[in-house]
Amino acid sequence: MAIDLSQWTCPLPLRDYPSVVLGHGGGGKLSAELIEHLFLPAFRNDALANLADGAVVTLPGSSTRLALTTDSFVVRPLFFPGSSIGDLAINGTVNDLAMCGAHPLCLTAGFIIEEGLPMATLAQVVARMAEAAARVGVPVVTGDTKVVEKGHGDGLFINTTGLGLVPPAVEVNPSRARPGDVVLVSGTVGDHGIAVLSVREGLTFETTIESDCAPLHELTAALFAVRPDGVHVLRDPTRGGLAGALNEIAARAEVGIVLDERTVPVRQEVQAACELLGLDPLYIANEGKLIAIVAREDAEAMLEALRAHPLGAQAAIIGEVTDQHAGMVIGRTAIGATRVIPAPIGEQLPRIC
Amino acid sequence: MAIDLSQWTCPLPLRDYPSVVLGHGGGGKLSAELIEHLFLPAFRNDALANLADGAVVTLPGSSTRLALTTDSFVVRPLFFPGSSIGDLAINGTVNDLAMCGAHPLCLTAGFIIEEGLPMATLAQVVARMAEAAARVGVPVVTGDTKVVEKGHGDGLFINTTGLGLVPPAVEVNPSRARPGDVVLVSGTVGDHGIAVLSVREGLTFETTIESDCAPLHELTAALFAVRPDGVHVLRDPTRGGLAGALNEIAARAEVGIVLDERTVPVRQEVQAACELLGLDPLYIANEGKLIAIVAREDAEAMLEALRAHPLGAQAAIIGEVTDQHAGMVIGRTAIGATRVIPAPIGEQLPRIC
Repeated sequence: MAIDLSQWTCPLPLRDYPSVVLGHGGGGKLSAELIEHLFLPAFRNDALANLADGAVVTLPGSSTRLALTTDSFVVRPLFFPGSSIGDLAINGTVNDLAMCGAHPLCLTAGFIIEEGLPMATLAQVVARMAEAAARVGVPVVTGDTKVVEKGHGDGLFINTTGLGLVPPAVEVNPSRARPGDVVLVSGTVGDHGIAVLSVREGLTFETTIESDCAPLHELTAALFAVRPDGVHVLRDPTRGGLAGALNEIAARAEVGIVLDERTVPVRQEVQAACELLGLDPLYIANEGKLIAIVAREDAEAMLEALRAHPLGAQAAIIGEVTDQHAGMVIGRTAIGATRVIPAPIGEQLPRIC
Repeated sequence: MAIDLSQWTCPLPLRDYPSVVLGHGGGGKLSAELIEHLFLPAFRNDALANLADGAVVTLPGSSTRLALTTDSFVVRPLFFPGSSIGDLAINGTVNDLAMCGAHPLCLTAGFIIEEGLPMATLAQVVARMAEAAARVGVPVVTGDTKVVEKGHGDGLFINTTGLGLVPPAVEVNPSRARPGDVVLVSGTVGDHGIAVLSVREGLTFETTIESDCAPLHELTAALFAVRPDGVHVLRDPTRGGLAGALNEIAARAEVGIVLDERTVPVRQEVQAACELLGLDPLYIANEGKLIAIVAREDAEAMLEALRAHPLGAQAAIIGEVTDQHAGMVIGRTAIGATRVIPAPIGEQLPRIC
């Protein structure tokens, strides 16, 4: 199959990019263009076209629905406040399964190691992975190890792929957001990105900002326990942050989303760091937070369900879905004004996951 | 969990390796040590401990057996005679599923791209992947793209993970090799490794040696059509070659294997290249060949079944399983002598897959 690059079109004329830039991996518009104009036409199939955090496939000759999701982790450095590439590799993929509404069954792990990586570092990362997997109760059932020459990699890259089982009553899908739905977030945003940035750039704040890296499958189970069909969309706002995730949902469901910015939980120290660095916490990656778009009648009960779990103690209702301005996210600011919250283009902080 | 490096022991004292070397990714003894002393203790579970090309897991509350397998591809260069990293990424994972006795259902694809990779190169690789996937009839249902800075990767690494379904009557497992079983190979060995080496090192032979990269699921289906229970072990001899794969099986099943070296099919030009380069074709990677260890009473029928398929036209019976010299592979040479065919240590040709 030939892919005609000259056909790549607006909103960003990617044909003007003769080569891949960092932003193509940022989870923003550049990533979306790559997916829409390169991967989707090549691999076209229904599961892929759904553009969720993972694919849901039905087992042939049965009604069993399996979720499958893959993620490569290239975070730099390998260890950072509160977490590591090993924790991320487990929790990130568990979370993608959870965002498909699935119960995680097992994981695979693929290691691409740069020659010269200290054996003790590899052992530490693997130990962190094993601890994280044990905490979730999901086994790493198979793996692969490749080694590349010094200078042709960057210490360690890890791919994890997860297999999960979607319970019969569950039906979450980015396209299920509908006017009147309520937007919940499970806690503070921006912690992970700022934690990685601070250690990478040697920034010191008054208190150490730790990554929020955590598995979210118990939070999603708590939501489903309220009413499975009331959970319409789940998304963990990693690359591209809350703004990126909400824009993707708005575009996919062809609805508008109104975000009440005053209600979005942001740690004081993260807010301070963002102001210092000229960053917007809405665009910063998280690794232990979820967005749930839920039926209005279930919103309060689901908020309580989230808050009853330690990982959701600071959960909040942060907005609603509307039939106005389809495809756009509009923020209501602290002074009562409104502003467009655009999708990110590339990634303001590369290699945070 | 702490991993105590000082406990790493014989046969190779890997504690003497303070850092990862290329051989740790070679599929030989160094890889095995890494798995045995680092990955297995950390992730300990039955599926992983099986050390097959993939894991077979039973779906909770059912008798459905799923196969899951993951592979990262770091081959250099991205295109080589007869194939590409894109073909490898699809066929390699389809083959690992087939070696679990599974029918492939779907694949995931994770891309780690080095900033600066020409967009046209990425498009070509993806097109090759899509063609290979379409040929097998298995969809790529979800994916992930990461971009790392120039100088921190090597053009393109691809991880593919495959999900397959194991038919009820099938039971293949490295530990099922038993004395009296017959060893089949589906065709010539060494083609892939020599093809990659020749283009990478700028070697010119009289004829172009092409990679044998191909999907093997139809060959395994042909074997099962003879008698599912007669197929005891399947393995595709990739890194480490035929010698590596047979040694792994011998060790795992605690049996001896006698290889009749005169019957191993090797292309004349591959043999010539190996003699020139001082390489042994038994240790060179293949990407479109399988080893089947089968019940003696089924061996002739299975050989015919392989030969009836274009990919198995040169299939041959190359040896047998014995209760002598457990854990070892013994070769009967052209002059009738015998020699030990040891497991490879590292990899004589790094980055061939």
